Amino acid sequence: MNLYKPGLHLLSTFASSPEQLTDVQACRITFDQLIDSLKLTKVGEAYHVFPNGGFTAVICLTESHVSIHTWPELGMATFDVFLSNYLHDNTDKARQFYEDVLLYFSATELSKHELTR
Amino acid sequence: MNLYKPGLHLLSTFASSPEQLTDVQACRITFDQLIDSLKLTKVGEAYHVFPNGGFTAVICLTESHVSIHTWPELGMATFDVFLSNYLHDNTDKARQFYEDVLLYFSATELSKHELTR
Repeated sequence: MNLYKPGLHLLSTFASSPEQLTDVQACRITFDQLIDSLKLTKVGEAYHVFPNGGFTAVICLTESHVSIHTWPELGMATFDVFLSNYLHDNTDKARQFYEDVLLYFSATELSKHELTR
Repeated sequence: MNLYKPGLHLLSTFASSPEQLTDVQACRITFDQLIDSLKLTKVGEAYHVFPNGGFTAVICLTESHVSIHTWPELGMATFDVFLSNYLHDNTDKARQFYEDVLLYFSATELSKHELTR
């Protein structure tokens, strides 16, 4: 008997401004506020800023993870949110997280993939 | 002019033994050895072990990221490796990383997705 309940993994490539793509602190605050408001549980994270101000970050959640990699010189980023449905159905939270991050970045979506896994 | 070179993101769901799915130290050593041997650059990481021994980890690379979430009680895990091609073509490294991790876990692949993004 397999009790696994696949979760929603949303993967975006989006365009945004160089200002926002280099503002790691504001992005971090946005992520933390979303994690709090959606009652997700952060258990670790890593943020790294490149010499040009672009940054890469991964956030480890008990529900799975969030990641972002920005290229301000190209005006774009890749962003993932993956929330398992192991204990609760987190599908709506994954969609809300995704939408709010793109809203924060005033993003133009260049590609979006949805995987149930 | 957009100089962005999309990278390969490989996403797996695989079956493995409860022993390996709870051995966070051995998994960590495997990841670190692969990162070294493939000359990738780790800039942060987060590992979290659950009460049942399952674990979740995200590794932040200058090239993007690696993640794993294990469910020993279900005998399975989800695993991602995403390497951008920004400075170098890392396609072969992404495939090698993926194959070596599944080999380490003596994994039975349940699903595999390949995204170029």
